[in-house]
Amino acid sequence: MRVGIIGVSGYTGLELLKILINHPKFEISYLGTTEGSEDIADIHPSLQGVYSNPVEKTDIDEVAKECDLVFLALPHKTAMSYVKELFKFDLKIVDLSADYRLKRETYESYYVPHIDSENLTNSVYGLPELYREKITEAKLIANPGCYPTASILGTAPFLKYKKEGTATIIDAKSGVSGAGKKLSETTHFVTVNDNMFAYSPIDHRHSPEIEEKLTIQSGNPEKVIFVPHLVPVTRGMLASIYIQVEEELDPIAILKEFYRDEKFIRIREKPVSMKDVAGTHYCDIYAKYSDGTLYVESAIDNLLRGASSLAVANANLLAGFPEETGLPTIATVP
Amino acid sequence: MRVGIIGVSGYTGLELLKILINHPKFEISYLGTTEGSEDIADIHPSLQGVYSNPVEKTDIDEVAKECDLVFLALPHKTAMSYVKELFKFDLKIVDLSADYRLKRETYESYYVPHIDSENLTNSVYGLPELYREKITEAKLIANPGCYPTASILGTAPFLKYKKEGTATIIDAKSGVSGAGKKLSETTHFVTVNDNMFAYSPIDHRHSPEIEEKLTIQSGNPEKVIFVPHLVPVTRGMLASIYIQVEEELDPIAILKEFYRDEKFIRIREKPVSMKDVAGTHYCDIYAKYSDGTLYVESAIDNLLRGASSLAVANANLLAGFPEETGLPTIATVP
Amino acid sequence: MRVGIIGVSGYTGLELLKILINHPKFEISYLGTTEGSEDIADIHPSLQGVYSNPVEKTDIDEVAKECDLVFLALPHKTAMSYVKELFKFDLKIVDLSADYRLKRETYESYYVPHIDSENLTNSVYGLPELYREKITEAKLIANPGCYPTASILGTAPFLKYKKEGTATIIDAKSGVSGAGKKLSETTHFVTVNDNMFAYSPIDHRHSPEIEEKLTIQSGNPEKVIFVPHLVPVTRGMLASIYIQVEEELDPIAILKEFYRDEKFIRIREKPVSMKDVAGTHYCDIYAKYSDGTLYVESAIDNLLRGASSLAVANANLLAGFPEETGLPTIATVP
Amino acid sequence: MRVGIIGVSGYTGLELLKILINHPKFEISYLGTTEGSEDIADIHPSLQGVYSNPVEKTDIDEVAKECDLVFLALPHKTAMSYVKELFKFDLKIVDLSADYRLKRETYESYYVPHIDSENLTNSVYGLPELYREKITEAKLIANPGCYPTASILGTAPFLKYKKEGTATIIDAKSGVSGAGKKLSETTHFVTVNDNMFAYSPIDHRHSPEIEEKLTIQSGNPEKVIFVPHLVPVTRGMLASIYIQVEEELDPIAILKEFYRDEKFIRIREKPVSMKDVAGTHYCDIYAKYSDGTLYVESAIDNLLRGASSLAVANANLLAGFPEETGLPTIATVP
Repeated sequence: MRVGIIGVSGYTGLELLKILINHPKFEISYLGTTEGSEDIADIHPSLQGVYSNPVEKTDIDEVAKECDLVFLALPHKTAMSYVKELFKFDLKIVDLSADYRLKRETYESYYVPHIDSENLTNSVYGLPELYREKITEAKLIANPGCYPTASILGTAPFLKYKKEGTATIIDAKSGVSGAGKKLSETTHFVTVNDNMFAYSPIDHRHSPEIEEKLTIQSGNPEKVIFVPHLVPVTRGMLASIYIQVEEELDPIAILKEFYRDEKFIRIREKPVSMKDVAGTHYCDIYAKYSDGTLYVESAIDNLLRGASSLAVANANLLAGFPEETGLPTIATVP
Repeated sequence: MRVGIIGVSGYTGLELLKILINHPKFEISYLGTTEGSEDIADIHPSLQGVYSNPVEKTDIDEVAKECDLVFLALPHKTAMSYVKELFKFDLKIVDLSADYRLKRETYESYYVPHIDSENLTNSVYGLPELYREKITEAKLIANPGCYPTASILGTAPFLKYKKEGTATIIDAKSGVSGAGKKLSETTHFVTVNDNMFAYSPIDHRHSPEIEEKLTIQSGNPEKVIFVPHLVPVTRGMLASIYIQVEEELDPIAILKEFYRDEKFIRIREKPVSMKDVAGTHYCDIYAKYSDGTLYVESAIDNLLRGASSLAVANANLLAGFPEETGLPTIATVP
Repeated sequence: MRVGIIGVSGYTGLELLKILINHPKFEISYLGTTEGSEDIADIHPSLQGVYSNPVEKTDIDEVAKECDLVFLALPHKTAMSYVKELFKFDLKIVDLSADYRLKRETYESYYVPHIDSENLTNSVYGLPELYREKITEAKLIANPGCYPTASILGTAPFLKYKKEGTATIIDAKSGVSGAGKKLSETTHFVTVNDNMFAYSPIDHRHSPEIEEKLTIQSGNPEKVIFVPHLVPVTRGMLASIYIQVEEELDPIAILKEFYRDEKFIRIREKPVSMKDVAGTHYCDIYAKYSDGTLYVESAIDNLLRGASSLAVANANLLAGFPEETGLPTIATVP
Repeated sequence: MRVGIIGVSGYTGLELLKILINHPKFEISYLGTTEGSEDIADIHPSLQGVYSNPVEKTDIDEVAKECDLVFLALPHKTAMSYVKELFKFDLKIVDLSADYRLKRETYESYYVPHIDSENLTNSVYGLPELYREKITEAKLIANPGCYPTASILGTAPFLKYKKEGTATIIDAKSGVSGAGKKLSETTHFVTVNDNMFAYSPIDHRHSPEIEEKLTIQSGNPEKVIFVPHLVPVTRGMLASIYIQVEEELDPIAILKEFYRDEKFIRIREKPVSMKDVAGTHYCDIYAKYSDGTLYVESAIDNLLRGASSLAVANANLLAGFPEETGLPTIATVP
C-alpha cells in the first residue's frame, strides 16, 4: 500500500516518516512540503544514510496518482484546503490538523471559517479505543489533538461515576515540541529553560475538542476546566485529571476492566512519568481515589500517541492491517 | 543584632547566608554544620572572595552565647532536638523544618514522634500575610513549607466564596532544589531531565499543613486534594488551584483587595511564570473564573519565598525591623 | 550622575537595568528602545513592583540632554549610527556592540562597512584588567564581547611563555542567552535541549577580536583557533584554552601573580564551573600543565562579566567611581 | 543464538536489552543482576507490556549453561571476577567494562590490581572500524569506552598527517548518563542543570586508553591532552579534536576515503550535533583545516555507539552475523 506524507518538514512529519521507514506494510511513495527539497535528509539531517528520497513541492494530482493513503501533517486551514481537493479522489486521508475534529460552529468559533464543511460529516475522529469500528470504514480520519488524546483516555472510563453537574478539571503539562517548529518567544530556549507556566488557561482550543468527545461518550453535556502548561521538556505530555464522583470506587480495577483488550493502554500501580512513554505509542494511566475526588493521570508522547503513531494506527485500521503494525513500543529512556 | 545559621551546608542554608551577607541590620555571628569546616567557601565555592568565615561543629552553648537569633536549616527531627535545648536560652529561633508547624497528632501521623511537644504551643506559623502580629511577638517561628506557602497564599483570599463541602484541588509543580541536597534516584539528573511526574499524590506531608492553616483561616474544616509534581527546573514553584465557588466573581479584584497592603504579593493580569519570581521574595498570583470554578495560580521561588527569604522576613519581624529589610526583589531572569 | 540605557528591551539591557537600579552612584535618567513603552515592567514583567519608568522611543537629542553617560545595548551597525551622533555631545558612551572593538579593515571584513570610522581611534577597549588607565580617560568605550572576555583573561597571563609560532586553541562553550532574544531555529528550545554543537568553528566573528587584543598584549602576531559551542544552559560561558609552552611551569602561581591586585578574577585550585560565576562579575580561572601543553579554563556569566556588569565597571571608571561600585558578586547558585 | 546480559539494571544493560528484544538472530536466554528480580519491568518500568522476563541473581554456572554469548554490563573489577570464571566455559564474552581494554601496567596504574591478567592477551579491543578481523575470531571482547570510541574514530584517519612530536588535544563533552546510575553529587540534577564543567582534566582514565590505541594505529608513541566535560544532557557525546598537521589538507576527502566502506560513520559537511546521532549506532564526523591546525569533531550516543550498540555489533561479528544486524539507525530527534 502506497502512502504519502504532506508536510514532512515538521516534527510530526518527521515522526511519521520514522515510523513508516520500517513499517512492514506501507510503502512511502510521496513526500511533500510547500517548497520541496532535493532530499529529505537535507531537511532532517539525522536521516542521512538511513533514508533518502526527494521531497516534492506538493501537487494534489501527483499525490492522488502516487498514493493510496495520505497523511496531512499541516497547520489547520491549510489542511482543509488540501482535503477539499483530495477527497474527490480514490484515496484514504489521515489529517493530523484540527480541521475535521469539531462540529462546524465549534470549529469556527475557535479557529477560522470552514471552507470544506460538507466533508465534516465524512470524517471520523481517530481515537481507536473509542471509535475503532467507525475508523475501519472511514475515508477521512480527523486525528485527535495531543491534549484531547491524553485527556479523553484518562477521563472516559470514569464518566459514568461522575457526580452530576460537576466539571472535570484537567491540569495538563506538555513538552515544547507540541508547539511545533514555528519560531515564537514562547518556544525560545531562554523563555522555557528553568521555567514553567500555564498558557491560554480555560480558553485553549483543545478544550471544546475534549468536551465534545466526552459529551458524545457520556451522553450528557460534559464541561471541562482545561489548563495547559508548558514544561522544559522536548517531548512528553501529562494530564492530571480531577473528577468529582458519587461514591468510593476502585479506580485501578475500573481502568483495567475498561481497557482490558487494549494493547496500548498501560494501567500503572504507581504514578506515571513522561519518560516511560516517550518514544512509544503507549498511554500510561494511574488513578487514586480520595474522599469524593478521583485523581487520574495520563501520560503520552505528544508527538507519537498524541499525533504521528496515532495517525499510523488509524492508517493501519483504514488499510485493514492489524492496528499495532509498525507502532513504536520501546521507550527512549534513559 | 547577631544571627547564626545552623545547617549552612544545604541549599536553604546557602540562601539564608546570601541574604544575610548584605543585610543592613543582622550581623552573622555563627555558622554551624554537623561536621564544621575551615571556611564556608570550602562548602560553597561560589562564595570565594565574597565572604569568608569558619564553620563550627554545632555546639548549643556556643550558639546561645554568640547569637541573638538563630536560623535552623535542618531536617525535621534534628531541628526539634536543637530547639528543645535552644529554647531555654534568651534568643529567638526561626526553624525552617516541619517540626513546629503542625498540631502534635497531625505531626506524628506524618512524621515521627515529637520530642519537644511542650514548645508546639510556643511556636507561631511564619506566614506574615496571615499572622504578622503574632510573629512580631513570638520567640519561636515555624517557617512554612514551600508548597503550603504557595498554596495558602493563592487560596486564602477565596475561602469565603468557596462552595460549602467542596475540596480545594491543588496541582503543584516544584523545581528539584526543593528536594534538598540529599542524593536519591529521584533527583538524579537522568531521572529528572526531559521528564515530569507526580509523587506522593494526595498523601504528601504538606497536605495536612495546608489543610490545618486553611481551616484556621476560614473557621471551617478545609479539605484539599494536593498533588505535587517534580519538574526539570532547579528553583521555582507553581501551584495551580481549582476552587468551586457559589457564584460568579471577579478574582483579580478580590486578590487586589485582599493583598492591598502587601508589598511581596504581586497580582498579575496574565498567567504567572516561575522565572519572574525566581531569585526573589515575591509571590505572583493570577486567577480566572469560569462557570462555577475558580482557577488560581501562585508562583514562588521555593528556596526563597518558600524557605530562606521568608525566614529572614520572619526574623526581621522578630527583631523589630521593617519586614522588607534586606529581602531580594530582583529576579535572576533571563 | 545621570545614566541612560538605549536598547533596554534585550537581555543585556535588562541586566544593565538590574545593576543600575541598586547602584549607589548612578541615577537612571533615560530608558530607550525602538518602539518605546508605557512602562519598563510591560517589557520585563519581573520588574513589576520593583522598578517603574516609562521607556522612550529613542531620541538622540533627548538622550544628550538627559544623560551624563549612556549605555548602548544595541545590535552592531545600529550602535554606530547612534554613536556617530552622540559623540558630538558632552557625554560618555559605553557601547556594548562590536562596532568600536576592531580596526576598520578587520571590522569590515567580518561585519559591515563602518559609517563612523573617525571615532574608531577615540574608543578604548573596555577590559579593565588590561586597559584600566586608558578607560579612565576615555569618552567612548568599546565593551568587549563575551567570548573575547573569557578567552583573553584566560590567555593573557601565559602569552610570554607560549612556544613561538604556535596557535592558541580556544574551545568555548556558551549558554543560549548569548545569542540574544532574536528568534532563530538555533535558539528554539527543541533544537537546543538535550543537544550540543559547535557553530561557525574557526570563522566566528569573535576570533579576530581575540587575536587583535592578544597581539597588542604580546607584541607578536597571535593566532587563535577558536571554536564556539552552544550548550543547553541559559547563562554561563566556559573557555577551554590549550597553549603550547616552551617549558614546564606552575600555572596557578603565574595566574596568582598576574592577577594579584584584581578583585574580580578568582584563581581556582579545582576546575571551574559556569554556576559558580553565574549572576556575578567574577571570572574564575583554573589551569594545569602537562608535558608541554598548558590547559587553562575560564568561566564567566556571559551576560554580566561578558556584557552588562563589565559595562558598568567601565562606566564606574569613566565616572571616577571605584571600579567595583554596585557590581554583583553573589552567584545565583543553586 | 542464546545470549545473556549480566548487569541488566544499569543504563547500558537496559540499552542492550532494548536492542536485543527486536534482534532477529539473538534470543535472550538470561538476565542477571546482583539481586535478581521477579520481572525486568519492575526494574525498568518502561518495559511493561513490551517484554517480560525474570531477572536472576547471577550464577556463573547457570550463565554458562543458558548462554552461547554473554554481555557483561558491570563496573570494572566486578567484570573481571566474572570473566575469570566464564572464560573457562565454551561461550563468547563481550565485556563492557574497562577490565580488558588496557595493558596490565596501564590498567593497574589507573584502576586496581588485575586479578585475571592471563586473559588480557585473549581479549580483542572491540572497535570494528579498526579491528574487525580480529574481533571475528575472538572469544573475549573488550568493548571500548565511550570517550575513546568518539576520540579514536575522529583521530585515526589523520594520524599519518600529524606533525611529529605534537600532542593531540581532545576537548570532550558528555551527557550525564555516561556517569551511570550511581548516585553522586556530580550527577544530582541541581549540580548539572544550567551548568557545565570539566572533570579530571588530563588525568581521566580514558586518556591512556585513547593513547594506547592510537599508538598501535600509528606505530608511534601518541600523546593526547584529554579534557572531559559534563553537560546538562542525558545522552550524547561530542569530541572536539585539535591536531597539528604538517601541511594543508582536505579533511573531508580524507575522512570519506578512510571510512569509505563503513556504514556507521557519517562524514558531515557541516558541524555535527549530539541529537542527530542520539538513539543510533552512528558516529558523525566533521573536520576543518586552518593554518596548520586540523579541527575534527565526532559525535556519538554515549550509551549506544559508546557502549551497548557497539557491544551488539561486536556480538554480531563474534556470532558470524552481518555486523549491522539489529543495530539502531533512527535517531530520537526531535
